Amino acid sequence: MLDAVLQHLRDDDANALERLKQVLAIPSVSTDPAYAGHVKRAADWYANALRECGLNVKVHPTGGHPIVLAHTDPARVRDGAPRVLFYGHYDVQPPDPLNLWQTPPFEPAVRDGKIYARGAVDDKGQVNLFTESLRAWNTVTKQKGEKFPAHVTVLIEGEEECGSAHLRPFLESHLDELRADFVLISDTSLWEPGDGSAVPSICYGLRGLQYFDVQLHGPSRDLHSGVYGGTLANPATILTQVLGRLFDKKHRVTIPGFYDDVVKLTPAEKRRWKKLGFQEAKFLGEVGVKVPFGEAGFDTLARRWARPSCDINGLYGGYGGPGAKTVIPSFAGAKVSFRLAPNQSCTKIAAAFRAWLESQNVHGCRWVISDLHGADPVLSATDSPWINAASRACESSVGRKPVLVREGATIPVCIDFKKLLGLDCLLIGFGRNDDCIHSPNEKFNLDGFDLGKRTHAALLAELAKV
Amino acid sequence: MLDAVLQHLRDDDANALERLKQVLAIPSVSTDPAYAGHVKRAADWYANALRECGLNVKVHPTGGHPIVLAHTDPARVRDGAPRVLFYGHYDVQPPDPLNLWQTPPFEPAVRDGKIYARGAVDDKGQVNLFTESLRAWNTVTKQKGEKFPAHVTVLIEGEEECGSAHLRPFLESHLDELRADFVLISDTSLWEPGDGSAVPSICYGLRGLQYFDVQLHGPSRDLHSGVYGGTLANPATILTQVLGRLFDKKHRVTIPGFYDDVVKLTPAEKRRWKKLGFQEAKFLGEVGVKVPFGEAGFDTLARRWARPSCDINGLYGGYGGPGAKTVIPSFAGAKVSFRLAPNQSCTKIAAAFRAWLESQNVHGCRWVISDLHGADPVLSATDSPWINAASRACESSVGRKPVLVREGATIPVCIDFKKLLGLDCLLIGFGRNDDCIHSPNEKFNLDGFDLGKRTHAALLAELAKV
Repeated sequence: MLDAVLQHLRDDDANALERLKQVLAIPSVSTDPAYAGHVKRAADWYANALRECGLNVKVHPTGGHPIVLAHTDPARVRDGAPRVLFYGHYDVQPPDPLNLWQTPPFEPAVRDGKIYARGAVDDKGQVNLFTESLRAWNTVTKQKGEKFPAHVTVLIEGEEECGSAHLRPFLESHLDELRADFVLISDTSLWEPGDGSAVPSICYGLRGLQYFDVQLHGPSRDLHSGVYGGTLANPATILTQVLGRLFDKKHRVTIPGFYDDVVKLTPAEKRRWKKLGFQEAKFLGEVGVKVPFGEAGFDTLARRWARPSCDINGLYGGYGGPGAKTVIPSFAGAKVSFRLAPNQSCTKIAAAFRAWLESQNVHGCRWVISDLHGADPVLSATDSPWINAASRACESSVGRKPVLVREGATIPVCIDFKKLLGLDCLLIGFGRNDDCIHSPNEKFNLDGFDLGKRTHAALLAELAKV
Repeated sequence: MLDAVLQHLRDDDANALERLKQVLAIPSVSTDPAYAGHVKRAADWYANALRECGLNVKVHPTGGHPIVLAHTDPARVRDGAPRVLFYGHYDVQPPDPLNLWQTPPFEPAVRDGKIYARGAVDDKGQVNLFTESLRAWNTVTKQKGEKFPAHVTVLIEGEEECGSAHLRPFLESHLDELRADFVLISDTSLWEPGDGSAVPSICYGLRGLQYFDVQLHGPSRDLHSGVYGGTLANPATILTQVLGRLFDKKHRVTIPGFYDDVVKLTPAEKRRWKKLGFQEAKFLGEVGVKVPFGEAGFDTLARRWARPSCDINGLYGGYGGPGAKTVIPSFAGAKVSFRLAPNQSCTKIAAAFRAWLESQNVHGCRWVISDLHGADPVLSATDSPWINAASRACESSVGRKPVLVREGATIPVCIDFKKLLGLDCLLIGFGRNDDCIHSPNEKFNLDGFDLGKRTHAALLAELAKV
């Protein structure tokens, strides 16, 4: 059956590209209310496409942009088949600055085997990998009087690029309808070690995030540094001293217990990561950095994926303009955030950081601490039936197993799926590092588009064997 | 003779107040080009007043606002008399915010024994202390066919509140005409220890200043903290670590040799300062600070006046707005300044700070260091004939010797007088701490106006005895 589906994908290739161009032409910029009509059109476009794939579709209004939810008809799915929940988003980032685009962002153009448009790869192009594979499965199974190899639910939201404010309440109120065995997401990239190659990867781990705004307040007003300098605690000075104590000489975070819960890298992971061929010098050199730096005892890949990190994201307070102003600021502040490694808890780290700050001698100054955001890390099993199915799917589509990777970033929706539905997310993406997501000239390599369609088609076939 | 002068001052009191109101009514705001005509009027007003005092006057145009320069006629000064150079300024700060003034800033109003107006005490009111004493001396000596007790040069500039850009070149090109034995300035306040009393003071020491903008640059652009967090040196983090090392546990600056040149407090100074009755809790409490803090081993007054200090005047870099942005900034910066104690050299400290920064391990980041301003400290002799004369003048006007104080701030014009003319400045002021200089409702207590006139008159008499 898969052979017939793949043949259909090949035969339908030009139409699939045409369909992608259609939806990329819709400027579904979610953050700007002026585009609300277009955002709605994009939702309707996907609702229609999913109907053409044989699914039952509903466009759910929310307090913001609509959520498209679609299901295969149970009568058309073989008995006892597994259930996959595909998540994607149809909204896009604003296209500005427009003058840097070679061709207009909402007039999709193919050049050198790449399709250029806002949303080409993030995420319309990657959503279409799955819908095109569904479309092929629908056509072929209908022709042959067969059934779908899996129960498929498709959830496509329209607010991913502006905070997903209405997604969590929607998940909470549709728990039954969203029941599945795992979540499938294509919003990431192929693994590129730095030598020019790009291979399929499955991401099984994400870091969490704990973000603080930390202010230290001192005198009741800004003071003349000549009159008061040397007589009282300058909050900017003391803030640098406290933050300077946040790391020890091994660049380890000094908050007591900070590393206690971190899951250690397994020997198997270490072995696998060594084989990834990651080129540290390339990774850092691309952003003008010659010297790797971080927690002692770990290499760059482990620091990125498996270890927590702490960054000062911003400093402010006093005079920061051009020239000199001889002021002792009444307060100074910093944005301080932690990327949390799997098994760390954002609430626990938040409490520990707060306690650590409170324990510092600030010579009469006062803290104003704001917890701005917390999200737990995620670590999925690497030997689940779903990962194994995806692995076999890659073998059949590319002739090799995918590499297993983690990500250093945080994907909040994965935590919601885990916490609300108890589901692991299988992240398998087909973008490239140079796709310019969120930037001018966003593109999707058409060989990735082809590979993604075939891999998703094969994955559905593999699910039938689970 | 002094008795007659003092009698004349008493008789002429109402006229002196009227004259002060006249000049306070001129909005000589130097920083705003829209007021240039008024600034010129204020210069002319002083030129005229000084002519009425019997001096030869010239209003010198500059690239900015004019400088008024006046001299006593040598034929009207007794042979061998000392030479005093009085320095003041006729320009004022902008009066904004206007709505906070009880009466309009340029409509001088007397309430409760105080005169309210912009410039009431800074510096028109205090310049008039000297011109009124000169006027009285001129009238009385003329009546009696006597001579002035000293050669007097008066220099009143119009750009003190906007940087004195044209003063230094003017001094350089008028060295001969400005030759004197010492400089006399009334632009400071009476000594108020904090118990409500206010006594005449002579300031003999000022701190210098060395001001830097210090930037640490890392990655070539702002980075995603999820993708890069933990793998490279974050310049904001490293900057706090370096600045955190700028002080040791005794809050002493750790730059090698930093304290080497500092003049030690003499036992005599320590004894005198103890007697000043300085109320530390009042001084700090007024700005909402309960805990004194500074270099170990020194009290607040010594930290303020006799010890160097280092302050972070501002922090910037990365994201400082509301909410969270998970960025690793490509650079971070700080404004760092030093108040220098007498005998420290701003060029030496600048070089030492630069070398110290360069010696820090910044893990591949790069410094961009800008030296924004340097001014050396000043320490005048406390037993000069001029200080002794001023001391006797106070004894005759108030019945007690003035206290000898230093200031923690920097008065660049004093360094210019020292370096270009080799002259010590005798700073004797009659303002109060609550005069609201540079703020709405600036005022000058009329008892200070009276005291100042009498003290300056007596000082001229005392100069005759030197």
